[in-house]
Amino acid sequence: MTKVRLGIIGFGTQGGAYAGFIQEGRVKNMEIGALCDTDPAKRAVANEKYPNIPFYENYIDMLDSGDVDAVVTCVPHYLHPEMGIESLKRDVHALVEKPAGVYTKQVKELNEFAETKPELTFGIMFNQRTNELYQKVKKIIDNGDIGGIRRTNWIITTWWRPQGYYDQSAWRATWEGEGGGVLVNQAPHQLDLLQWICGVPKKVYSNVKYGYQRDIAVEDEVTTMLDYGNGATGVFVTCTHDVLGTDRFEILGDKGKIVVDDSKKVTIKRLKQPESELSDKMSMQDMAKLSAGGNMGEIYDEEVIEFESVWGAQHTAVMENFAGNILDDEPLLAPGSDGIHGVALANAIHLSSWLGKEVELPVDEDLYLAELNKKIAEEKQMDN
Amino acid sequence: MTKVRLGIIGFGTQGGAYAGFIQEGRVKNMEIGALCDTDPAKRAVANEKYPNIPFYENYIDMLDSGDVDAVVTCVPHYLHPEMGIESLKRDVHALVEKPAGVYTKQVKELNEFAETKPELTFGIMFNQRTNELYQKVKKIIDNGDIGGIRRTNWIITTWWRPQGYYDQSAWRATWEGEGGGVLVNQAPHQLDLLQWICGVPKKVYSNVKYGYQRDIAVEDEVTTMLDYGNGATGVFVTCTHDVLGTDRFEILGDKGKIVVDDSKKVTIKRLKQPESELSDKMSMQDMAKLSAGGNMGEIYDEEVIEFESVWGAQHTAVMENFAGNILDDEPLLAPGSDGIHGVALANAIHLSSWLGKEVELPVDEDLYLAELNKKIAEEKQMDN
Repeated sequence: MTKVRLGIIGFGTQGGAYAGFIQEGRVKNMEIGALCDTDPAKRAVANEKYPNIPFYENYIDMLDSGDVDAVVTCVPHYLHPEMGIESLKRDVHALVEKPAGVYTKQVKELNEFAETKPELTFGIMFNQRTNELYQKVKKIIDNGDIGGIRRTNWIITTWWRPQGYYDQSAWRATWEGEGGGVLVNQAPHQLDLLQWICGVPKKVYSNVKYGYQRDIAVEDEVTTMLDYGNGATGVFVTCTHDVLGTDRFEILGDKGKIVVDDSKKVTIKRLKQPESELSDKMSMQDMAKLSAGGNMGEIYDEEVIEFESVWGAQHTAVMENFAGNILDDEPLLAPGSDGIHGVALANAIHLSSWLGKEVELPVDEDLYLAELNKKIAEEKQMDN
Repeated sequence: MTKVRLGIIGFGTQGGAYAGFIQEGRVKNMEIGALCDTDPAKRAVANEKYPNIPFYENYIDMLDSGDVDAVVTCVPHYLHPEMGIESLKRDVHALVEKPAGVYTKQVKELNEFAETKPELTFGIMFNQRTNELYQKVKKIIDNGDIGGIRRTNWIITTWWRPQGYYDQSAWRATWEGEGGGVLVNQAPHQLDLLQWICGVPKKVYSNVKYGYQRDIAVEDEVTTMLDYGNGATGVFVTCTHDVLGTDRFEILGDKGKIVVDDSKKVTIKRLKQPESELSDKMSMQDMAKLSAGGNMGEIYDEEVIEFESVWGAQHTAVMENFAGNILDDEPLLAPGSDGIHGVALANAIHLSSWLGKEVELPVDEDLYLAELNKKIAEEKQMDN
């Protein structure tokens, strides 16, 4: 095998984009093996654009066809785990879309099944992990450049979604159809990056607004406090109603600070000695003198890096890395089993708001599912 | 009377600075009436610098002397309310330092007493209210330029305090001596400004770290979530251990956004129509086109204002305004009775962390005082 034949499950916006990337040759080690969508109307569109590519209405048929070596799941979140399992069961490599699922219980089943198939590649579309900017930030943290983390603060509100977006399908922004709003749909990348870079929080307390600025059942605004259990704290804010979106991520460490603006610019301040040592040997007057004299450079170095980013480049990078793992054992940037962390954090944020109290991670998965099912039941009752 | 004769109670760093401002003629309608400090050693310093100014060791003697028309209280926080009351009782105008007190119960007594003396001027040293930048921000909010507030977010960590600062006196950073740390000592201005500009929150939930990065009993780090009771939310973060301090205040409204950086630069984005109308009539594709074409100017105007600020100018402005109110009924920028809001918020933040749950404002003042007294008792026990 020189190229991985990818089966794309779900030929909507995302699936269509992936097909386009491959067709344009942007994923060097992949070709389109087959397309699949439960909507028969998509067949005509697929045949016109990709006349020589087989089209299936049932993904199981596609898995059994021998047309594909691997699949990607561009379908509603709830379906990701079962599709991942069915694929792996048939020795077809699986790249699941984010989020890995809606609740950890189902994601755990996927992970456990994947463990029984170590010879297969199981990845997740955490395309932001291939973003050089976040790789750089992770490296700085992992290197200990800014020391142990004291505080994280991410305001990420750059995904404005108008009412029309929510109205486009009946399942959008419902508990039954998506299992949440901004947390499961827009923010999973940041929920992943935050933990990938800064570690998994131990406790969260949240204030989540359901249908605050949009006529939807699920959340369009989230404010969360994180407790890392070692003294470090964090704040995570996201929403879909800020048309003047902010994306600002600050990490304070024992030996410096990183600020990421607009996922484009990284400002790194590295202290020449740990803050605790400065505290022990400098007076406020010493510091005021440094500051007034414009000599703060005596205590830290500043590095500013600007990154260019092209939409899609990160998706194709994940696809290429996924195929590279299948073909040449290239290390996976986003192992599928990592998908559970973001789901666990999203579940904890929901649960904290439902219970009105701080919750520990991992949350009780049966309790979460019971509460989620209550939301689904309430939603159905309101529809009737 | 053409100039107000000010009695300065407490001839330490702050009291000494105020004396200097007046002596240098920076407060045009004030003169130094008398100086006062319980430390007899300060008399020599005072006599040398201000040879013709009377010095008292007991502030009651100063109040009774006829040497002063007004006083300012540059003494530990706990003493502000009683000194305010004793002054007003003797028909001496009172400018209390921030915070107005340590707990609302004592501040309420001061406010209630001041109400019985409406002919006297009762002010508080909220010098940041005279900062043109915050006046501008308040005006924009009050004018409705950015519509109703949806979210506030202030990270204010620009007051680094080394261990030596805390070690300079036995009462510093103790429950008995100061009644708190960063909340009562460094952050009162922001706790005031936040409410002055954005309104009083209805509920708070906090994660407060006591002696986190410094060897102190009180708090050196605070993370708080605010709930304004009308859907609007907020986050307030402060600490004294960030030598690379951040000062970033963001306010999101229905019709725009304000970001204040470093208390120097204000960026105002005013939407040409409310966000809810954009949500109703624009699609994601419309917005993506505007954004990709660099045409976001079609939906908002941006204004950036840079301010210069000189340390001390804001203190002298409060003093001048206070004297102006005494002499010419000039409207008070910072009425003393406003001091209770910041104390109430600080109390709520402490109490939420002590009880481990969200608390409503105003907090039960007896409960707060009982909990504070427990901290004082614990502290004493540890000293023994």
